[in-house]
This record gives sequence, C-alpha cells and structure tokens, in this order.
Amino acid sequence: MTTGYQASKSELLNRLSRIEGQVRGVSRMVEEERYCIDMLTQIGAIEAALDKVALGLVDEHTRHCLAETEGDERAEKVDELMGALGRFVGR
Amino acid sequence: MTTGYQASKSELLNRLSRIEGQVRGVSRMVEEERYCIDMLTQIGAIEAALDKVALGLVDEHTRHCLAETEGDERAEKVDELMGALGRFVGR
Amino acid sequence: MTTGYQASKSELLNRLSRIEGQVRGVSRMVEEERYCIDMLTQIGAIEAALDKVALGLVDEHTRHCLAETEGDERAEKVDELMGALGRFVGR
Amino acid sequence: MTTGYQASKSELLNRLSRIEGQVRGVSRMVEEERYCIDMLTQIGAIEAALDKVALGLVDEHTRHCLAETEGDERAEKVDELMGALGRFVGR
Repeated sequence: MTTGYQASKSELLNRLSRIEGQVRGVSRMVEEERYCIDMLTQIGAIEAALDKVALGLVDEHTRHCLAETEGDERAEKVDELMGALGRFVGR
Repeated sequence: MTTGYQASKSELLNRLSRIEGQVRGVSRMVEEERYCIDMLTQIGAIEAALDKVALGLVDEHTRHCLAETEGDERAEKVDELMGALGRFVGR
Repeated sequence: MTTGYQASKSELLNRLSRIEGQVRGVSRMVEEERYCIDMLTQIGAIEAALDKVALGLVDEHTRHCLAETEGDERAEKVDELMGALGRFVGR
Repeated sequence: MTTGYQASKSELLNRLSRIEGQVRGVSRMVEEERYCIDMLTQIGAIEAALDKVALGLVDEHTRHCLAETEGDERAEKVDELMGALGRFVGR
C-alpha cells in the first residue's frame, strides 16, 4: 500500500509478460481461424489487464511523483497526468 | 489554470444543464421513433461531455484536495480517487 | 427477446428520464459544493446507464434494421453501425 | 470493403505482432524505470490498437457470420455478439 513503484517492478513485469502471451494467443486464434466472438472476448480480457496496469501507474504517480512536487512544478505535473488520463477516460 | 473548482462552478453548471438538454433530446428522438444510429451518435456525444466533466473533477481533486493533505490522510484520499477512476478506466 | 425496438419504447423513455434526473442530481451536488469523488461516482453511474441504452439500440439495430436488408444496402448499414460503435469502443 | 475476414488475416496478424512488440516495449520501459506518464501514454496507444482489432472483428462478424443465419440461430448469434460488445462498451 505504502510501497513505491520500484517495489512492484517485478509484479508489473509479470503482468506485462502475461499480457504479451495473451496477445500471442490471439494471433494463434487468428491463424487457426477461430470464432470471431472468442477472439473478441480475449481482446476484452487483454484490455482489462492493460487498464489495471495503467491504473497502477496512475496510483504510483499520484502517490509519489506528485507528492514530491510543489507550486508550478506540481501544477505542470497535474496537467501532464490529466493529459495522459484523457486518453483512457475521454473518447 | 490555477483557479480552483469553486471558480468554475458556473461553467460546470452550464455544461451539466447542456447535458440534461441532450438527454431530453434523445427522449424526444425515441418518441419520434428516429433512426437508431442517430440516437447512438447522440448518446456518444453525451458520454463524451460527461467524460469532460469527470476529468475536470479529477483535475480539481488532484490539484486541490490532494495538495492539502499529508501522510495517512493523503494515502486514503489517493485510494479513494483510484477507486473512483477505476469506474471510468477499468472495464 | 424477439420484440422490436417499438415494443420497448416506454422502457427506453423511463430509463432516459431517470438518467435526466441523475444529471440534475449532479447539478445539485455542484451547487451544494459536494465532495468531488461523490460527484465522480455519480457521473460513472450515469455513463453506465447510458452505455446500457446504447447497447440496447445496437441490439435492436442488429436484430431488426440489419435483418431486413441485403447486398449493398446491408453493407452500407453495417458501415454506419461500425462508425457509430467506434465512438463507444475506439478511443 | 466487401472482402471477408479471411482476406485480411495477414493484416490482422501484422497488427497483432505490432501490438505484441508494443507490450514488450512497455516491459523495457519498466525495467529502465522510465517516467510513469510515458508508459501510460504507451499503454493508451496499445489499447487504441486493440480496439481497432476488436472493431474489425465485430465488422467481420456482423457482415458475414450474421448474414448467413436466420431465425432462432440469428437471434442467438446476436445475443452472443451483444454479450461480447458489452465488455467493450459497458462499464
């Protein structure tokens, strides 16, 4: 909970390597001409896993990077975070 | 940019009243049995407008509420924010 | 299940009028200067309700409008649907 | 436009292999302890690419699989598609 991003580096790498394997799995499904809906479900699962990684990064950023800044530097960092978040939330 | 949530209260109310009107507009389209795709496009526009309001609230929260806290209180507030964000980002 | 859009018109109108009320509720929260996170949660709930209405419209469209078409007309209708869907899925 | 899923199989495989590379790129960024926001931006780009693949599959499914069905079988196939779509649209 109070550990930094650094601490969960290996967990993050595990999650990303699992996601990489899931993407490879979809490629295999395409090669085998599997049913569209099954591939769609797999892609939904991959995006949910990526969303979790993204939220973890936002959490870390808010908890650590922002906490160490003040004044104008802080305002800039929040602008930056909001810009990045907009790609996930805004459509 | 450096103004608080308080300052943009009237702008926020304007946006929400516009959104309310857009929802009423979709009701009218349903009553008139308009084309599904046109209603779908309208709903997409309403959600985009709501996303903007949501991002504005996250911005204000990060810029102000979080800045005024420290230690455990800050950690709790970040938890709370992440929980709320998860409803927008996570699927 | 096999009923058309026509049949669920009143249900759709009910849902939209509930959504309108929810948007008005957020305006009230803004006026009372309520806590950002609570408003954020409300907006998340409104978007989830709108997503449901949108999916209902896609369902109807796929089940009825598309079923009645053939050849080029069908291809055009699918293009149209995909364009509308892109606003919900694509970012 | 009128070509089937089959025809774009190689294009789909190309896109997925590019996505796999992008995921590997984020792993590298984590190892190098790069800036959170840059990784967040990358993940946003990966999800956008996956959304495109997903929409392509929905397009193919609607254009081909659904077109070849009738009656109860068609109704079931639409149910199935809506269930899969709900993971992308509904939150």
